[in-house]
Amino acid sequence: MSISLETLGDRWSLLIIRDLMVRGYTTFSQFEESDEGIATNILTDRLRRLEKNGIISRERESRDRRKATYRLTEKGIDLAPLLLELLIWGARHERTMAPPKLIAQIEYDRAGVIAEARRRWRERDSTPLIPSFANHSADCKTKRAERRQT
Amino acid sequence: MSISLETLGDRWSLLIIRDLMVRGYTTFSQFEESDEGIATNILTDRLRRLEKNGIISRERESRDRRKATYRLTEKGIDLAPLLLELLIWGARHERTMAPPKLIAQIEYDRAGVIAEARRRWRERDSTPLIPSFANHSADCKTKRAERRQT
Repeated sequence: MSISLETLGDRWSLLIIRDLMVRGYTTFSQFEESDEGIATNILTDRLRRLEKNGIISRERESRDRRKATYRLTEKGIDLAPLLLELLIWGARHERTMAPPKLIAQIEYDRAGVIAEARRRWRERDSTPLIPSFANHSADCKTKRAERRQT
Repeated sequence: MSISLETLGDRWSLLIIRDLMVRGYTTFSQFEESDEGIATNILTDRLRRLEKNGIISRERESRDRRKATYRLTEKGIDLAPLLLELLIWGARHERTMAPPKLIAQIEYDRAGVIAEARRRWRERDSTPLIPSFANHSADCKTKRAERRQT
């Protein structure tokens, strides 16, 4: 377990893995524009480490990291159950923007969600598995604002 | 997920949670003497943070942290599925000292292992759920050495 934690690295590494697995992001710019606002130098460093630890692979070799495409390796997609548990735990115990209905569905069908994550990974299908909650919440706010105006 | 990661903190926090959940450790000195060799100041800081984040509780109020007893809260024991996935992933993809037979059993009966972790927590039963792999491996080495001598 100690070794797993060393390989996984910090919070930023896991957020990159989440972006790849759950949101279907594949490029440097997409990670950079993710909600949490990762600094460019940290992003570069974490991508390098994740690649070195065999969790992601860089697909088109290029000097410009911004033009490369990243993908989870098999070791990386095997983190799906762990990320799911992290999501469920957070939704249960922290104030998150995760919609309760969605979390209940995920808890009810863990195996199905993991299978779907694996299918998308295998087939290089980059449609998001779970929408970004921040956007979801922004949509709700817009809708609420619209309703108020009418 | 981002919020979960912020609450959980770093590698050291998760190792303390592991020591509480899996090894049945409850005191400052036990955490301090754990295999990974956590520094005293880091241990003090992480225990404080975990307490602040509602993941552990300090049981006997005392000025001397070394005499207090720590226990997972409900929020803390709810991390059991996550820790299990971390253990399984590490055993599959990293060189660990985890005995393959034990890992296979755990993978086969995730729900049973989690239920047992919860029972021990509820009943304040501090017998280890899973032995320390380092000790296990040390035992093996001793046995191997003994065999060689005979």
